[in-house]
Amino acid sequence: MSLLVVGSIALDSVETPFGATADALGGSAVFFSHAASILHPVQMVGVVGRDFPSAALESLARQGVDVSGVVHGGGESFRWKGKYSYDLQNRETLETRLGVFAEFDPVIPEPFRRAKYVFLGNIDPALQHRVLDQISEPSLVACDTMNYWIHGKRRVLTDLLERIDVLLVNDSEARELSGDWNVYRAARWILRHGPRMVVVKQGVYGAVLVDADQIFYIPAYPLEQVYDPTGAGDSFAGGFMGHLARSDDLSPANLRRAMVYGAAMGSFAVEQFSVRRFEEIGVAEVTARVREFSDLVRFDIDPEPSLASGM
Amino acid sequence: MSLLVVGSIALDSVETPFGATADALGGSAVFFSHAASILHPVQMVGVVGRDFPSAALESLARQGVDVSGVVHGGGESFRWKGKYSYDLQNRETLETRLGVFAEFDPVIPEPFRRAKYVFLGNIDPALQHRVLDQISEPSLVACDTMNYWIHGKRRVLTDLLERIDVLLVNDSEARELSGDWNVYRAARWILRHGPRMVVVKQGVYGAVLVDADQIFYIPAYPLEQVYDPTGAGDSFAGGFMGHLARSDDLSPANLRRAMVYGAAMGSFAVEQFSVRRFEEIGVAEVTARVREFSDLVRFDIDPEPSLASGM
Repeated sequence: MSLLVVGSIALDSVETPFGATADALGGSAVFFSHAASILHPVQMVGVVGRDFPSAALESLARQGVDVSGVVHGGGESFRWKGKYSYDLQNRETLETRLGVFAEFDPVIPEPFRRAKYVFLGNIDPALQHRVLDQISEPSLVACDTMNYWIHGKRRVLTDLLERIDVLLVNDSEARELSGDWNVYRAARWILRHGPRMVVVKQGVYGAVLVDADQIFYIPAYPLEQVYDPTGAGDSFAGGFMGHLARSDDLSPANLRRAMVYGAAMGSFAVEQFSVRRFEEIGVAEVTARVREFSDLVRFDIDPEPSLASGM
Repeated sequence: MSLLVVGSIALDSVETPFGATADALGGSAVFFSHAASILHPVQMVGVVGRDFPSAALESLARQGVDVSGVVHGGGESFRWKGKYSYDLQNRETLETRLGVFAEFDPVIPEPFRRAKYVFLGNIDPALQHRVLDQISEPSLVACDTMNYWIHGKRRVLTDLLERIDVLLVNDSEARELSGDWNVYRAARWILRHGPRMVVVKQGVYGAVLVDADQIFYIPAYPLEQVYDPTGAGDSFAGGFMGHLARSDDLSPANLRRAMVYGAAMGSFAVEQFSVRRFEEIGVAEVTARVREFSDLVRFDIDPEPSLASGM
């Protein structure tokens, strides 16, 4: 089933204790597309400036991403510069230059308007509304946001919640949106405001799916070395939506599987700077990691005979 | 198999946003014993002052805890007073009065010296050594500690690591002990220094078991209401060791099961102040919660036919 992403396409300059990048490929639509396209073709909508490296879009196209919805603006590309703390748990934004992104007005190309699976990357919720206005009959709309919009455009965002099926946010965003520090109560608050499902991402700890019928927790893949956390959340979304689009199955069991694909993609994202790790892997590596997740959480609770008699 | 705990027996005064207690039952040996004794009899060693309520020990005894190793000192009982932040994620110690605990010199009663499963609660590592000196042939020794000893008695503690099988610590303790902020590298550091297994407790996120052959992650039980986090770690240890002692099975599959019993007991502990929740539950409630954990993490990765053909 067709899978559409609308989001930022950026040039990131990132510094971590393990190195630095300058003008490396980044942005929500880019991480999402790199991750999702390993599983399923992606239709991508965004804007780049005249200074954007054409090789980057060509690379995405080779991977199965339809980049015909990427608009080429006359100004500079969106740039983000940030620095992570020694333990990668905090980051400081050093510079944000919106460039062509400031005027971004997403126009969905005609062939993309019948997309069945839609991911609204973290952009102004007013623009997320405009995207949905152009989509005819989506099967599932998932959406990300950030604290900046939660504070600055709260009403537009809460209106948007009524139009989407899945909100994917991190724990601090869930807390700020709901005003509740308990993640599960925060998720219930969000469910009452529209979405059928909430995915709360918890960084190095994992992610939890909450809907009316189930709670499913997937831990983060146990990595001894993380190079750059940038894009982990969008890559998670790419794995989640990529799996749903290719399977076209919204059963509880398959939503759980999608969470595992999300966690796998998030773990690959942080193993290298920018999208580099995605350029090294294919479906075989993803499948292998998904199987490792199975071993990470598997347990059998049936008591053994000796145990039952010992009670 | 016999299960011994040596640790603190305290009167806690705790304030959380949801209420407060004054001189309520607390301490590592108490939380451990309340949790473990739901699964298996416990032998308890510790010290109480002359002001300690005899009803508290009688209640433990009725639950299957052999309190004959509890020494009655002439001074005041150990008291701890603390206050939690609004989100329960931080706590401030307002007062610590060691009382009889200052002179605690654990003497293991003769019948307890053949204990097969031993839990060394968080006390001075020099005392933890003295306990082990008195145990003849334990099958499994597990140990907790805290940052205070990691800084103040580092050498005594690292010597102790060579004598134990399992170190149970929280993530900040694992980081401080190893000098490494990555939890999995910290666990490897600990494994290189003696223990066969490390359990890193991560509070509201869950806990992870790391040994040479496996990594097993169990999330925390999804609670929408937590009243008092005090004792969660010791209750986890009680569930973990209680299950191992009753099953006497150190296979990888049973260690995973023990982690789930630990997580279940940790979740009960925080549902009420002090040990109150343990006074309300029995093995049926514990088993039911363990089964809920199964549902929380269960997924099936086998691709469905439609998915395989769609690739």
